[in-house]
Amino acid sequence: MRAEIISVGTELLLGQIVDTNAAYLSRLLPELGISMHYRVTVGDNTYRLADALRQALSRSDIIFTIGGLGPTQDDLTKETVAQVLQDPMQLHRESAEQLRAFFAARGIQMPLSNLKQAMVPTKGRVLENPLGTAPGAAFETADGKVVIVLPGPPREFVPMVDERVIPYLRERVGENSPIIRSRMLRIAGLGESSVEDKVKHLLSGANPTVAPYASTGEVHLRITANADDAPAAERLIDEMDRKLVEALGENVVFGRDGETLEKVVVEKLLRCKLTLAIAESCTGGLIADRITDVPGCSAVFLAGVVSYGNDAKARLLGVDEQLIRDYGAVSESAAKAMAEGARNVTGAGIGISTTGIAGPTGATPEKPVGLVYIGLSDDKDTTVREFRFSGARKDVKQRASQAALEMLRLHMV
Amino acid sequence: MRAEIISVGTELLLGQIVDTNAAYLSRLLPELGISMHYRVTVGDNTYRLADALRQALSRSDIIFTIGGLGPTQDDLTKETVAQVLQDPMQLHRESAEQLRAFFAARGIQMPLSNLKQAMVPTKGRVLENPLGTAPGAAFETADGKVVIVLPGPPREFVPMVDERVIPYLRERVGENSPIIRSRMLRIAGLGESSVEDKVKHLLSGANPTVAPYASTGEVHLRITANADDAPAAERLIDEMDRKLVEALGENVVFGRDGETLEKVVVEKLLRCKLTLAIAESCTGGLIADRITDVPGCSAVFLAGVVSYGNDAKARLLGVDEQLIRDYGAVSESAAKAMAEGARNVTGAGIGISTTGIAGPTGATPEKPVGLVYIGLSDDKDTTVREFRFSGARKDVKQRASQAALEMLRLHMV
Repeated sequence: MRAEIISVGTELLLGQIVDTNAAYLSRLLPELGISMHYRVTVGDNTYRLADALRQALSRSDIIFTIGGLGPTQDDLTKETVAQVLQDPMQLHRESAEQLRAFFAARGIQMPLSNLKQAMVPTKGRVLENPLGTAPGAAFETADGKVVIVLPGPPREFVPMVDERVIPYLRERVGENSPIIRSRMLRIAGLGESSVEDKVKHLLSGANPTVAPYASTGEVHLRITANADDAPAAERLIDEMDRKLVEALGENVVFGRDGETLEKVVVEKLLRCKLTLAIAESCTGGLIADRITDVPGCSAVFLAGVVSYGNDAKARLLGVDEQLIRDYGAVSESAAKAMAEGARNVTGAGIGISTTGIAGPTGATPEKPVGLVYIGLSDDKDTTVREFRFSGARKDVKQRASQAALEMLRLHMV
Repeated sequence: MRAEIISVGTELLLGQIVDTNAAYLSRLLPELGISMHYRVTVGDNTYRLADALRQALSRSDIIFTIGGLGPTQDDLTKETVAQVLQDPMQLHRESAEQLRAFFAARGIQMPLSNLKQAMVPTKGRVLENPLGTAPGAAFETADGKVVIVLPGPPREFVPMVDERVIPYLRERVGENSPIIRSRMLRIAGLGESSVEDKVKHLLSGANPTVAPYASTGEVHLRITANADDAPAAERLIDEMDRKLVEALGENVVFGRDGETLEKVVVEKLLRCKLTLAIAESCTGGLIADRITDVPGCSAVFLAGVVSYGNDAKARLLGVDEQLIRDYGAVSESAAKAMAEGARNVTGAGIGISTTGIAGPTGATPEKPVGLVYIGLSDDKDTTVREFRFSGARKDVKQRASQAALEMLRLHMV
C-alpha cells in the first residue's frame, strides 16, 4: 500500500506554521505496513489542490488530505475531493445534529455556512470528530483507492487519527500484511552526543534500527522493527530495548512513547504516597503547568507559588529578606530557602524550587543568562544543584523545568 | 515567478524530523515577489525525486531542492537534478580544494566519495557553503527555469539562504519586480465563524486578500498585498487593516504579527503602571508561565499562586474555608475570593483568578468539564465571568488562560 499526504493551507505553504500533523501521521503509517512515498503542500487554492489530488490518485493507493474543513469560504478541501472523485456528497444527519447542538450549548444560532461541514461522501465512510465541529471522511473509489479527509487543527487531528483513522486503516489493509513497529525511549539527564557515545555500537543494525533525536532538554532513541506479525516485532524491540537500557545505565531512560517526564513524576509521587509543592522563580509557573497537564495530579500536587518578586518570596514562602540581600535572589541559599518554604507553607512531603536568569536581561558578570539553581527539600534534607542552560528565554525555562522534574524523578525510588 | 520546494529525505517523509528549512525559505520568498505554489517531500529515492522534479519543471519557474547533498550513497539529489536536466556537471576546483582543506585541518584523508560534493552544473552557478563541505548550486535551463540545490542541515541551510540564495534571486528577479507583503491581525474574544460574519464583505477582494485562520482560543486574519514596491504594499495593507478594525469593532484586534496576547497584557500593565498577581486553579500555572515568557515582565508581575488544593486556597490566598464548603471550589464565589486574595497577599493592583473543571475527571452533573470561572479584582471592584470551554484537558487550560488574559487586556485602557 502506497500512501501520500496532501496538506492544505496557505499558512503552511508560506511557512507561517510548521506541519506537525503530517509528521504525526507519517510516523504511524509504517506500523500498518503502509509506506509513505510523497508529501505535498498546497495553499487554499482549489485548482492546485485538484491538480495535486489527480496526481496523487495516479501514483498512490491511500491519499490523506489535512486541513481546509472549516466553515469558511476558503475551506474547500472536501468540496474539491468530491469534485475530483465525482461524488455528489450527502448531508450526514448525525453530524448536522452535533453541529446544531454544539452551537446551542453555547447559546449561539448556527451560521448556515457551517452546515457544509456535515456533508459526507456517498461512497465511503464518515470519520466522526470527537473534539470539533467538522467530521472527517474516507472517500472510496471504484478502483480501490481511498482519499481520507482530515481537519487541520492538531487538537482535532491527533485524536481523529488515533481513534478513527488507524482502526479504519487496520481494517482496510487486513491483518496479515507485514508490519513495522517502533518504540521511543526517552532520556532527560544527558545530551545527544553523550547518549550516542554510550549506544554507538547499537546504532548500525538493520532490524531493528535505532535512531537518536534531540529536542529541548530531552533525547529520544527510536527503535524500529520489521516483522511478519506484531508479537515478532515486539520481541525484536524488547530485546533492543534491554540492550539500550544496559548500555545507558540504570534509571537513565525515564519513559517510553507517550510517557512524558511530568506523567512519570506524578505516577512516582502517587506510588510513593508523597505530596508536592513548587516554588518557581525563573521557570515562572511552567513546572506547575506541566504537572497539572497530567490528569489526576490533584491527588499529589498541593500548590505552586510563582514568587517572581523578592517581596513575594518573603510573603508567600517565608524566605528571609536578609538572606536575599546577602546572597541575591539567584543563589544557592535562595533556592534552598524557597524549596523549604514551599514545604513549610503547604505541608507537602517534597518542595522543589527554581531561581535563575532566564534572559535576555538581568545578567551580571557573575550571574550569566542561563544560570539556574534548583532546590529539592524533603523531611530529611534539602539539596541544591547549579545548572548553566543555553538558549533563548523560553529554552532556559523549558530546560530548567526539565531538570527540576528529572531531579524529582531520581529522588523517588 | 512561481516557486516550488522539493524537500528530500526519508526522515522528513516519515515525520521523524519536522521540515523547518522549507518553512524558513517559504517565509522569505514573497518579499522578492516570488509566490510559492507547491511544496513536495520525497524520500531518499532517485526515481521519485526525478518524478517530482519533472513535474515541478512543468508548472513552476524556480525549484528549490533541500537535502541529499552529503557524501553518502543515499545523497543523490544533485546527481538526479543533473540527470533530469541533462547537465553533465563538472568538477569545481575551488570546492574540491576546500574539501581537501576541510579534511586536512582535521588530520583525515578525504574519502574519494566526498569528491562528488564538488561537482557543479555546467550551466548555472555555484552557491558556496560557508559552514559545510557541500556547496549548493543553481542549475539554469535554456527555457529560463532554475533549479536551486541546497544542503539539508539547518545550520548550513539558513546561512546559505541568507547569504547566497537571496542575493542570487534578487539579481534574477530584478529590482523592479512586484513584491508581496502580509500582516496578521490577532483576535482573542470571538470564534472563527463570528469573526467571518463580521468581515464577510471584505473577504472576497483580490488585492489585498484577507483570509481567516483559527488556533486554540484565537482567530487570525491575514492580509496579503501585491504591489510594485514595499511602501505601496504597506499602503494597501494599512487601508484594509483600518476596514477590518472598523468592521470588527473597537478594541477587538489585540495585536498584529508577533504580538502575543501575553505581550500586549504586559505592555498595557507597564503603560498603566499597574502590578499583577495571579491565583490559578484549573489553569495550573499556565497564565503565569505565559506572562513570564515576556521579557521585562518582572516590572509588573509580582506573584502567582497555583492553589490546586482547597487547603492551599485558604493558606496561601486567605480564601474562607466555609465559603468553599458552601459553594464549592469551582464557583463564582471562589473565583471572587481568589482574585481578591491574590491582591491582598501581594499588594498588587490587579488580581486575576481561575477555577474550573479541566477534565477528564472531576465533573458533576451541575459542573461539567469545561466550566470555568474567571475573577478579576482591582482597587474598585471584583467581577467574575463564567465560561464553558470545549476540548481536552490541555485545550481547556489554554482557552481559560486565553480568556483570562483577554479579560485583563480589556480591563485596561
